[in-house]
Amino acid sequence: MPRTEDRPVTAIDARAHAWSPKTARARFRDGLAGPTAGVAAGHTQANLVAVPADWAYDMLLFCQRNPKPCPVLDVTDAGATSTVLADGADLRTDLPRYRVWRDGELVDEPADARAYWRADLVSFLLGCSFTFEWAPARAGVPIRHVEQGRNVPMYATGRACRSAGRLRGPMVVSMRPVPPEHLRAAIRESGLLPAVHGGPVHCGDPAALGIADLDRPDFGDPVALEDGDIPVFWACGVTPQAAVMASRPPVALTHAPGRMFLTDARDEQYRLVGID
Amino acid sequence: MPRTEDRPVTAIDARAHAWSPKTARARFRDGLAGPTAGVAAGHTQANLVAVPADWAYDMLLFCQRNPKPCPVLDVTDAGATSTVLADGADLRTDLPRYRVWRDGELVDEPADARAYWRADLVSFLLGCSFTFEWAPARAGVPIRHVEQGRNVPMYATGRACRSAGRLRGPMVVSMRPVPPEHLRAAIRESGLLPAVHGGPVHCGDPAALGIADLDRPDFGDPVALEDGDIPVFWACGVTPQAAVMASRPPVALTHAPGRMFLTDARDEQYRLVGID
Repeated sequence: MPRTEDRPVTAIDARAHAWSPKTARARFRDGLAGPTAGVAAGHTQANLVAVPADWAYDMLLFCQRNPKPCPVLDVTDAGATSTVLADGADLRTDLPRYRVWRDGELVDEPADARAYWRADLVSFLLGCSFTFEWAPARAGVPIRHVEQGRNVPMYATGRACRSAGRLRGPMVVSMRPVPPEHLRAAIRESGLLPAVHGGPVHCGDPAALGIADLDRPDFGDPVALEDGDIPVFWACGVTPQAAVMASRPPVALTHAPGRMFLTDARDEQYRLVGID
Repeated sequence: MPRTEDRPVTAIDARAHAWSPKTARARFRDGLAGPTAGVAAGHTQANLVAVPADWAYDMLLFCQRNPKPCPVLDVTDAGATSTVLADGADLRTDLPRYRVWRDGELVDEPADARAYWRADLVSFLLGCSFTFEWAPARAGVPIRHVEQGRNVPMYATGRACRSAGRLRGPMVVSMRPVPPEHLRAAIRESGLLPAVHGGPVHCGDPAALGIADLDRPDFGDPVALEDGDIPVFWACGVTPQAAVMASRPPVALTHAPGRMFLTDARDEQYRLVGID
């Protein structure tokens, strides 16, 4: 039996699918701490990574140089606890759980980040694959890890990101098995969301990305391929967290895996218009 | 009779369409100084704006916050004169002509920027509408300003960009008249190039953007609408230059209007794949 807080929020309270983002943030602020997949469905969830202002240029440049894994949705001014993406939100309290990093080492996972907040922190909110799964799913593409009740598997690849100042690290990818007859829709529908990772970076042989064993992901859970499924790899928002681990800024705050920031934005806002 | 250097490079030497980017850069380095529309056709041209490192974070954040007018293709390290976008290029010499700004005022337009170069300059190379016109044109959309032998008209709008630190300014747009039967293709084909301005920001009444008179553009030439044409407005790469004028960094270097940097990249590289 997993700890209560490891159970998805939608398993703890089935109404969570229909919450407004504001309600979700209030519940997380009040202590609810599970993974957020499916919460306030249709609203955009975001990765958080906050670094001292002295590191913010390197982080912003790292994101610019690696836009597929690091699609920036908003960057706050130094010390700001609010974002244009969510009315009245407080970035220090409104995520279910945080990770605190010192010199690249994980030192705490608090539910409230106020004790670690600094006036010089710049917060980056980055696109998340929770946002792009709805589009292929709506087009009929099966989402295997959801079918199997698991977190999506993620892998640190052998492909280095383009470094920026002191920041470097591997590209991290997420993998979804796709039946061949759904491959075109999976590529097309995710490709229409370039602001949240966009189309896949690779289809097929994991070895091409330096991934030795699909059954041993670096983050998340292994997911079974069904007969004929092709493994399809998308750039993943965990990449900046891997850069923090590799590059060791004196301090960094991130969301805890799967426990994302709920914005007021709607997923559709990030879909290119006028293409169909 | 315009000065030789105001004549388009392709009018001075018809072979310029077929030059390699490397040849084009060498010719510009050797003193050729005209507008670059059509030069090394199929290769990506870029806007240049270089600011002191102390202003680079504000500029990068300004671009991130205003991605339609300011699509970043590359940012150099401070003092670097090369870019990953062009093998062997020297950003100080390889553009046809530069503009030098002090405290937001234009102070010189040299053909060679070495006398003004500083070790702390960070260069931003931004997407340019010369890149996105090929896609609608290939789909049969008439490009009126090319038919009329003019530069595209550009307007400072009443719409403010989202500011970033000390940088603020109006969004600048370019306008192309589009016959209604070509509107869908113009929107779709430019929309597939989100890395170089993407789809239009507005179609129709110029007053909605605070533009009083289409015949009086702020940059470029007025272009005649034919019967039934709808004015279509795209975010424009002159926007960061307008921000330099409004925000007055102590020094900035930009390309001179229409005299862009020729990269080795191909326009097709910036088109989303897997969508058709």
